[in-house]
This record gives sequence, C-alpha cells and structure tokens, in this order.
Amino acid sequence: MSGNTYGQLFRVTTFGESHGGAVGCVIDGCPPKIEITPEEIEADLKRRATGQSKVTSERKEEDRVEILSGTFEGQTLGTPIMMMVRNKDQKSEDYTYLKDKYRPSHSDFTYDKKYGIRAWAGGGRASARETTARVMAAVIAKKILKEQFGTEILAYVSRVKDIESNVDLENLTKDKIEESIMRCPDPVASEKMVDLVTKMKEEGDSVGGTVSLVVKNSPIGLGEPVFDKLEADLAKACLSLPATKGFEIGSGFSGTFLTGKEHNDEFYKKEDGTVGTKTNRSGGIQGGISNGEDILLTVAFKPTSTIKKNQKTVNDKGEEIEIENIRGRHDPCVLPRAVPIVEAMVALTLADHFLRQRAQNG
Amino acid sequence: MSGNTYGQLFRVTTFGESHGGAVGCVIDGCPPKIEITPEEIEADLKRRATGQSKVTSERKEEDRVEILSGTFEGQTLGTPIMMMVRNKDQKSEDYTYLKDKYRPSHSDFTYDKKYGIRAWAGGGRASARETTARVMAAVIAKKILKEQFGTEILAYVSRVKDIESNVDLENLTKDKIEESIMRCPDPVASEKMVDLVTKMKEEGDSVGGTVSLVVKNSPIGLGEPVFDKLEADLAKACLSLPATKGFEIGSGFSGTFLTGKEHNDEFYKKEDGTVGTKTNRSGGIQGGISNGEDILLTVAFKPTSTIKKNQKTVNDKGEEIEIENIRGRHDPCVLPRAVPIVEAMVALTLADHFLRQRAQNG
Amino acid sequence: MSGNTYGQLFRVTTFGESHGGAVGCVIDGCPPKIEITPEEIEADLKRRATGQSKVTSERKEEDRVEILSGTFEGQTLGTPIMMMVRNKDQKSEDYTYLKDKYRPSHSDFTYDKKYGIRAWAGGGRASARETTARVMAAVIAKKILKEQFGTEILAYVSRVKDIESNVDLENLTKDKIEESIMRCPDPVASEKMVDLVTKMKEEGDSVGGTVSLVVKNSPIGLGEPVFDKLEADLAKACLSLPATKGFEIGSGFSGTFLTGKEHNDEFYKKEDGTVGTKTNRSGGIQGGISNGEDILLTVAFKPTSTIKKNQKTVNDKGEEIEIENIRGRHDPCVLPRAVPIVEAMVALTLADHFLRQRAQNG
Amino acid sequence: MSGNTYGQLFRVTTFGESHGGAVGCVIDGCPPKIEITPEEIEADLKRRATGQSKVTSERKEEDRVEILSGTFEGQTLGTPIMMMVRNKDQKSEDYTYLKDKYRPSHSDFTYDKKYGIRAWAGGGRASARETTARVMAAVIAKKILKEQFGTEILAYVSRVKDIESNVDLENLTKDKIEESIMRCPDPVASEKMVDLVTKMKEEGDSVGGTVSLVVKNSPIGLGEPVFDKLEADLAKACLSLPATKGFEIGSGFSGTFLTGKEHNDEFYKKEDGTVGTKTNRSGGIQGGISNGEDILLTVAFKPTSTIKKNQKTVNDKGEEIEIENIRGRHDPCVLPRAVPIVEAMVALTLADHFLRQRAQNG
Repeated sequence: MSGNTYGQLFRVTTFGESHGGAVGCVIDGCPPKIEITPEEIEADLKRRATGQSKVTSERKEEDRVEILSGTFEGQTLGTPIMMMVRNKDQKSEDYTYLKDKYRPSHSDFTYDKKYGIRAWAGGGRASARETTARVMAAVIAKKILKEQFGTEILAYVSRVKDIESNVDLENLTKDKIEESIMRCPDPVASEKMVDLVTKMKEEGDSVGGTVSLVVKNSPIGLGEPVFDKLEADLAKACLSLPATKGFEIGSGFSGTFLTGKEHNDEFYKKEDGTVGTKTNRSGGIQGGISNGEDILLTVAFKPTSTIKKNQKTVNDKGEEIEIENIRGRHDPCVLPRAVPIVEAMVALTLADHFLRQRAQNG
Repeated sequence: MSGNTYGQLFRVTTFGESHGGAVGCVIDGCPPKIEITPEEIEADLKRRATGQSKVTSERKEEDRVEILSGTFEGQTLGTPIMMMVRNKDQKSEDYTYLKDKYRPSHSDFTYDKKYGIRAWAGGGRASARETTARVMAAVIAKKILKEQFGTEILAYVSRVKDIESNVDLENLTKDKIEESIMRCPDPVASEKMVDLVTKMKEEGDSVGGTVSLVVKNSPIGLGEPVFDKLEADLAKACLSLPATKGFEIGSGFSGTFLTGKEHNDEFYKKEDGTVGTKTNRSGGIQGGISNGEDILLTVAFKPTSTIKKNQKTVNDKGEEIEIENIRGRHDPCVLPRAVPIVEAMVALTLADHFLRQRAQNG
Repeated sequence: MSGNTYGQLFRVTTFGESHGGAVGCVIDGCPPKIEITPEEIEADLKRRATGQSKVTSERKEEDRVEILSGTFEGQTLGTPIMMMVRNKDQKSEDYTYLKDKYRPSHSDFTYDKKYGIRAWAGGGRASARETTARVMAAVIAKKILKEQFGTEILAYVSRVKDIESNVDLENLTKDKIEESIMRCPDPVASEKMVDLVTKMKEEGDSVGGTVSLVVKNSPIGLGEPVFDKLEADLAKACLSLPATKGFEIGSGFSGTFLTGKEHNDEFYKKEDGTVGTKTNRSGGIQGGISNGEDILLTVAFKPTSTIKKNQKTVNDKGEEIEIENIRGRHDPCVLPRAVPIVEAMVALTLADHFLRQRAQNG
Repeated sequence: MSGNTYGQLFRVTTFGESHGGAVGCVIDGCPPKIEITPEEIEADLKRRATGQSKVTSERKEEDRVEILSGTFEGQTLGTPIMMMVRNKDQKSEDYTYLKDKYRPSHSDFTYDKKYGIRAWAGGGRASARETTARVMAAVIAKKILKEQFGTEILAYVSRVKDIESNVDLENLTKDKIEESIMRCPDPVASEKMVDLVTKMKEEGDSVGGTVSLVVKNSPIGLGEPVFDKLEADLAKACLSLPATKGFEIGSGFSGTFLTGKEHNDEFYKKEDGTVGTKTNRSGGIQGGISNGEDILLTVAFKPTSTIKKNQKTVNDKGEEIEIENIRGRHDPCVLPRAVPIVEAMVALTLADHFLRQRAQNG
C-alpha cells in the first residue's frame, strides 16, 4: 500500500530509481492469450523518451525492453508480466554537488522528511523516468481495450503557457498529433509553441500548459458509483503524474459558468437506434459511470522545476544557500513527452475498470 | 473493490440508497481510545443537511446518528465503527413517474446500462444523500488530525458562477465561513451569491461554482511518491463527490501561465529555525508528499442537474420523450452544502495517509 | 486493512460487539438482480443460533434481520448490502466481575495489549456472535454459487473428542446432517456425541473435535496460482473462525504417510467425456486451482475455553488471581453450531474466487 | 488481485516462470534505512536451492541475486525493492514430450482449464522455483523482526512419512537444524529419514511429512481480531506453498482430544514481572492476536507428485494415455528444502502484521 501499485484488477506495480539498476513494472491480473512483443512496447517508449526533437531534453534514451516473465511463445499467460529497461548512464558523481541541497519545487526536501534517506543521484524515484514503466504497462492495456471495444485513446498538447490550440476532435487521429514535434494537432499553434519552447531553452527557463485527451469508442458502464467514480479514478491517475496541478472532466471549470439548463446534456435516439447525448458536457461520464460518449479530459502541467538559473534555497542542515544553475538534462517543456504518459494512465484506468465491470456484472 | 470503500488503512465503507432503510458507514482501522459521541457527528451533519437556509433545498433533514458498534463507554475500540442514520420519508410512489425515464445529466441511464436494475425512487445510491456517511466518518478523521498535528481543514465557497470571492487565507476561521449562509467568507461576494441563487430558485434553474480549501498545520511527510501522491489521492477524493468537474492543487491551471523561474517556490529558514517556502504555488505538496505548508485546493461543481424545467430526453425503451418539471427537492446551488463534504474527503485522505506514513516510517 | 473485511471482489465487512448495539455486515461487489429476503437469511441464522437443542448453550437467540441497503423490490442492486441484527440483552453489569480479569485461553489479555482498551462486557468483538454476520453474507454467496454452477456446500461434525463418525460422502445430503442435533450424519456416532456433550455440560467442562466439509458440483478453474491458492484462502477462511486450531485439504496430514505413487490422483475419461480423477487425495484442488472434483476439507475446533470451573489466572495489574466459575452462557461443544459458519466461510471464499476468475478470464 | 502479491503493508509481489527469463519479487512498503546486500539474500537462497546434498534434486541451482531498485548505498530507500535471479538452463525442448499431457496431481490440467494456455516447459508458474522469490523477500522481513523484537524464526523437519522426530524446542538453534542434511535437529530421526529418502530416490518414488516451526521472541499484539487473525494469515501463508495439505497452530488436531479444562493455558506472573502462560496449547496466539509466547505451527507436505514411474493419465484432448517416467529433476522429498520457505512465509506474515499494528496502534 505504499503507492507503487495502480489498479484493482489490472494491477501495475512499478519499480526503479532514475540512477538505479533498472526501471520496470510487474502487471498482475492481465487476461491470458494477449499477443505482445518487446518491439511493441519499445514503440510507445520512444514517444516518451528524451532526445526526440529539439523541444525535448538532449540526452538520448534508447531503451531496450526485456519481458522476463508472464509470456510464453509471444502470448500472455495470465501470470505476472515483468518488463524492464536497464538504466544506462549511472554516473551518480555528477550529482554529488546536489547531495545536501534541496532544489526548489523538487521532492528533495519532502523525501528527506518522509524517509530520512533519499537517492540524491538524479531524481531517484521522483524522476519522470519512472513513468517509462507506466507506458510499458499501458501498451498492453491499450491492446485489451482496442480488442474488446475498438477503443482509441488520443492525447495531445492543447495549450503551452498562453498559446491555445484549436482542435477538431471529430477528425482527430494519432497521425495528426504525431506530425507535430509538440504533439499539438493545430499546426499554427504548434509552430508558435515550438518558438516559445526554443526561446525558453535558450534562456534556461521552462513553460507548462495543458494536455487534453479524448477516448473514442469508449466502453459503456465502466466506473463505480461512489468513491471509484470513473472521473475520480481518472483524476487520480492523471494527478499521479509528475508536475501536474489540475484536472478537468468534460466541461471542467468553464462549465461552472453555465446554468443547469445550459449545462445539461439532452439524451436522444441516434440513427443506429442507440441512445446518445446531443452535447457532451458530462465528458462521457454520468454518475461516475461511462455513458459511451467520448471521454474528454484535460490535465494541467506546471512549468518544470529544473531550470538553468541560480536560485535561493536551503541545504539539509537548514542553512540558506544559493543553488547554481542545475546541470544535467533540461527539458524546457515536458508537454510533448507528457502526451504518452497521460494516455498511459487513462488506458490503465479503463482496462482496470473493464475487468471490475466484468467481475461484478458479467 | 466495488468502490464503496475509501482509504487503505483508515477505511470507510459507505452504504445506503436515498430511499432505502438507512445511510451509514463502517470505519475499519480507526485507532483506539478516541472519544466520540453521536452529538459530535450530528453537528457536522447539520452543515451538510438540506433545509438550513433559503439557499438550500427546503426539505428538512434531521438526522439522528446511531453508533452501533466499535465504541465502548464513549471511546473507540479499534474495531469497526458502524454509524448510520435512518431515512425518513420513503415515499417511493412520488417517483413512479420517473421510473422509466432517464433524466438528463443524471445517472439513471448509466446505472441501468451497468447493472440492469436501478433504484428509481429518488437518486438511489447516486443521491448526494450518500455523502452523509462520509461526513459522519470524517468527524473522527478530523479529530485524529487535530489531536496529532493540530490540523484544521477549512473549506469555503470561493466562486458561484461568475461571482468571485476575495478571501484572506491567513486569517480565515471556521466562524467566518459559517457566518455566511453561502459559506463564503467574503461578505460582499456572499451577498451577491445569495441574490443569484435566490433568482435561480425562482426560475427553477441552478448554478455551480468552486469550493476552495486550506489545510492549516498540515502534517509533513504524508503522501506516497508514485501513484498515491497526496495530490492524486486528494483529486480522487474530491472528484468522487457528486457534481464535480475539476480539481486544482496549489497554482492549478493558472500556474501554467507562468515560467519555471516564476513558479518555483524558494526554500528559506523560518524564524523558528525550520524550513519553509516563500511562496506556495506547490500548494503544500512537493513530489507527492506534504511539505508542511498549507495545503491549498479548489474543486469545480457543475450547476445541479435537477432543474424545474421541461427537458427533452429518452425513456428506457430508447424513445424520445419530454420530461416534465422534476418534482421533489430542488437545490438551486449545492455549493454551501458541498463545503462540509469537501472537508470530509480531505480529512479522510489525510487521516489515511497519516496511518500509512506511521506504518512504514514509524 | 484491519482485518474486518473478507474477500477481494465479493467483499464482506462485518461489524459489531456481542454487547454493543448490533452485529451485521456490508457486502460490496455483489452482482445485481439476485433475489433475497430477510426470511432466507434468518433461516440460516437459526442453524448458528444458541438455544437450538440440549447440546447448545441455553440462551435463546432469535435474530430478526434488517436489510437496510443494497436491495430494491427484493433484488440486489449491485450496491452495498447492509444487513444487521440488533443485540438484545445487553446487561453489561453481569460482566463487571470480569472487567479486570484475563480469562485463560480467551482474548482478554491480547486485546488489552493490542489496543489498550477492550469491551469487557462479554466477548466483545472476539465473541462468536460476530460469526452471525458471516452467515448472513454467506446466504447470498451460496445463492450465487447455486445459480451459476449448482454448487452445494455441506459441512458436518465428523469427530467429537475421540468419537469418530463414518460418513458416506457420495450420498450425503443436508437433510441427513440436520436430522442429528449434533449435525453428524452418522446416527451411531451422533448418539455417542450427544451423550458425551451432555456429560460435559453437567461437569461444566467442554470438548472439541472436527468439522468436515464437501463441496459438490464445484466450479472448475477457481483459485489463483501463487499466494491465493484456493486451499490457502480456504485455510485462512476456516482458521479465521474462533476456536480453530487446524486445517486439512484433501488427504491432509494422513496423506503424508503415503508415497508419491500411492498418493497421486490418476486422471481418466469419465462417461460423459469430461476428465476426472479416480481418487481425490488432492481434495478437488491442484496447483491451487479447483479441478471440478469435490472439494474436501476438515477443520479442528479446540474445546471451548469458557468452562464452569475455577481457574488460576492474572488480572490486568499482572497479579495472580483465581477466576470463579465463569457465568453466563456455556456451550460445552461448539461443533454443531460451527457447521453453518464453516459452510459460510467456504461459500464466501468460492463466491469471491468466482468473481476473480470471471474478471481475469472472462 | 490475481494472487501474486502477499501482505497488506509489507507487500511482496513475485513474478517468474521456471523456464522464463527470471524469477524475482518487488517489495513495496519496506521501511527505509535497512541495510541489505545481495550476499545476504544469496545465503538464504542456498538453503532453498537444489543440489545441496544427496537428499535433494541433483540439478545445481547457483543463483546470483540482482537488486535493481529500492536501495541506495546499501540501504533501503522506502521505495519498491526489485530483486531477481535469472533462470539459467532454459531448454524447453526437453519438455516437449509433456506439452499435451496432464501429469497426475500436477497443475497442468487446472492451468489449462483456467487460462486456456500454459507454459508447458517445466512447471511454469506452478514450479517451486517461484518460492525463490519469497525467500529473497523474507530475508529483509527477518531483519526487520530481528531488529525490532529480537525475533527468531526456526523451522525444521519434524516428520518424514512415519519417522517422527523428538525435538527440544527450548534449546533449538539454527545451527542444530542446519547440521542435518534433512534439517531435522533430532540426529537419530534424521539418519532414518536420510535412509528412507535415499531408498525412495532409488525407487523413483517420493515421500512427504511435516515441517514444524517455532517463533522465539515473538512480538505481542500482532494479528487482527476477525478475518485476519494471526493464525488465519499464517495458515494461508503456509498453505500457499506448493505441495502443502494441512496446517496446525499450537495444539492443532491433537488438542481436540482434550477437554476445555485440560486445554486452557493458565496465565501467571513470570519472574520478570510480565505475564506468561504455563502451557502453550494456544501456540502463542489468543483471539487471533499474539500473546508473546512462542508461536508454534506445523505444516503437512504431501509426497511430491513428480515420480520416476509410469502413470496413467489423459492428454489435452481428453484421451487416456500412459505418461512415461517423468524426466528432469526429481526430488524424492521436498521437506529439507521446504524449511526455508516455511520460515519465509512466517517472516513475511509477521513483518506485515508488525506494520499493520504500528499503523493502527502507534
């Protein structure tokens, strides 16, 4: 219960520090007979990796996935699937100058207070490197959802600082998102974002923004009525990602400026005879349970804390000091790399709720 | 795992439909020897009840709490505490006209799709009546936090539709909040809110807004680094409340308009020799773990779906129909009553994380 | 996680002290649309109650079941089912002479050490009265298993002290068991048992023995390979009952006197074309998973600790004292009343594993 | 929830098939700052390995432990600890002749029925090789118990087939157990056991028996009153080991031949002023909670199913066939190697209950 496992039935436990031996996951509860290869896993990892383009950190991660249990002749067995990638450059000496310092808005201080010890070489467990393991697990979750319901999960960068995008959700495809190095499917906004991020990189500063996500062909009936409402679990899933500060489902904060009459989603009979809603301010979820409409959500990511600027702070003796220009990788904007991890958390949540629904309701 | 239990160690299971026999909870894992009386529980229930003032639903709930297990001579035993309130007016006939109809933006449709059956008399399990049980449990959670850390949890209505409040968090007290029937400690805004809500009531329409919350004397070291980050669990806690659409921790969405240099919270040495941060954009949590600063969060509540207006919808045969003016209680703005339930969910989350922290780190 | 919940998916949380307000349970995760009435629940409670015959405690329990949530028009809703029975004679004064004394082989001492407080009026949470709640929940579990697989769960008293029974498992029925007030379907042994228990009652002493159980029409494929092997969960289920000291599955301890060649169960093709085993030393479970043969198990119950004899012990100051003849109900042999609670725990375990199997394997 | 995780707070998830890439575990919830080295882990693994002596399987396992996360500079971080050993000889071709056959009393049939797929190369997930991971995790659990309470956990072979041992529990030490290749600290019985096992090996047959265990310096107050009674969790822990058929706590089955007066454990004041019991038929646990006396338990292991004899069985088409003399490793008696795995499961159980006790009761 120390928070390194996600899911009730499709259970993913991640392990690994950024500068330890490896980062990986164990998936327990995965249905049997799903085909999976290391190459499929690696394909999604590349989207999360650094060194993809000029807008991400330069350090190039090239992760080779090892699947060490839970599969046989290319298929899942129903037993725990352990997958991992080794950490390559583990030069912890590079970090000795940070050993006793608390970087502003990082987790150095709180880890020390909580555990009385921390892996000061790099971000340790708090590093975004941990999300590699989530992406690995989610590749399988996505496959299950695709096979069962034709579900597609599409995340994209919807805003960087004050640069808003304008996206046609109806015709959104993964290709349109991946065409942009910002993963923003609005070419005009994408170009402005690239310019801003390039400028931030030069200045050693950083920017944040929002990632939005749409679930197409969403299964109906997922989510549990009370504490484990689907939007509650999605909120937790997304807020468990590093650097997140906010979450919206459907109409979100802007919906609170409407009246009930304006906000309610009218039901109607669709051409195929099934029931749909004319508007989708509910974001595909009503009473905590998915209604089959697209699930729509948005996540706020703060500007990354690691900046190449001198900052005032304290050390582990409580003395006020100045921390020099933080060395090592610098990601002026995490948003393009956040896209696959938001997708991953949504996929893990839906796959888990699918199994929960099947358990209780057959 | 059907989502009616909250917490890993301070575990609250709620039960009850709005028009069934009773609504209540079982708390398992509560530390022993905490003094508790039904009267203390009832005091907080009154803040959540309808019929408090002209801005809430008229129906008067007067709940008498029965504590049927887990205490002995006024103290908790460490065994499960079962508390409940009986439901009084269970005239399900009043609802027969809704039996086969799906009210827009309610859970009628999704419950039917999920379970193949629903308690059509009132909201059933989806009714906000269920939150009564959460408030009951949270009274004990608050006591534990108060005794251990002097923690105080203060929620208030920060915005109704487009009426913003201006609140001095430094000097905020529970009394200042409770003085306003809107539970908005800004008297000017409060008055405007009352006017708006009164108007909505007359029109049979509804409004939403935001509830904000501050945790004073927050314990340090609570939260688990990865999936169970404190903000992730708080997001889930808050989004598990009916009618919520968004969540922010610390700087939230507005923080994404800053650069990293502007956003980072500088550490400094406080007068008492301990470490603090000069600003609190982190909202009291860094790397998923509380740092001792005030925890700050905001929750978006949509305008209530129950409105006294005719609306188009479908019935359970999928036929398009018009639903008449929904009878029964009508709450034009849930925000004042949402205040104690947001507090409750935060209290349950912190109490649970306190026990988790004690388990692992002594 | 304080141990008052059983099951992963068919989750039963029990509450209640013997001399508190009520004893009951909340079932979460129950499939919807199962028909259930208080009368059905009460029927099984009667088998567990005291005052059934001359071989059980005289005090007559007549429990009226209240189902306060989770059903609508006689059917389960898929939401938490809360059921309870009120405690009637709560004269805690009767127990004041025991307030500071630790009865030998009772839980008085350990509860005090664990919690620093205990409900000294009667057995409190440690009373066998708690098992009432398990029996209530199991009525629904049995129904699910019966409907899905035609499963029947038959427990009986197989030995009292050194009086062994001889039972034809092939033709065993519930009626044959219930004919005997000892719930021993061997009439000769049953009579001897009654004589022994009557003698013990007169002497104020007590006896133990074994309850055996057979599951007919056992589902195939239940149980999880590693920690949650079906026999492991059954062992836990049975050893969680008060006064139990041992557990055997299939050939049990006696099987360890055979060689591998003698012990292995040969597979063969049955007349209906399906696969069976010629012998059943495995007890219906292989590799932790049920194979469709009858599940066979035996549970050891110690002689009850409550005896009507003076005994040496200590008080809560650690002083050596003599405890007088313990007043109140005296059950010289718990075995006949243990039969329904062993059945209950097996039913809860199988129902839970059925949902787990359905979740992962469809 | 697919049964590959053990423990509520000291959570161990194991992974790995006998002929997959690796076998290992992730420990989540481990307290920080515990010193641990791969060498310490390997020391206990050797006790479980094959090829130790003439009474175990000849195949020599020499496992090199990799600790790939959760430690830093030789100390636990409080984050997930992943440890694993690679599988060496993965010649699955050796097993192709078994691909479609169900070995008697093995898990081949039930895995196929449950999952529709199985790793037919060796035992797969059902192989005792999986227990390697449990032993690894338990090394840390033992350290925690030793540091906190001076607890020592000593298991030994108490009977092989009908060869009973006679052991002085008072003066039992680990050295006395390890001196015997049977891990039976009664030299006379040990010699007889060696002779019997040698004979079985020659005959291609196998034998079972019992492993007994004593916990010295047992912590007081561990165990949860109702479902998670300490003996219930110990029973589950032990019955989750391959080839187990029975479990006894304290007086076990033999205690059921006594009367209550004979069986009760009298409390008295010990010389050091604390409270003890004169006898220990309770086996160190009363009301589900440890009382500080030695915890005593016994586990029955059936004769291993893998024998070098021709046997009748069926194949996966349901046809009756004869299975030839099973090739590969043959362990005529698992008991000596079962000793460290019984210890491991008890250590994991106690460490978990220690954290649970600390969470609730401080």
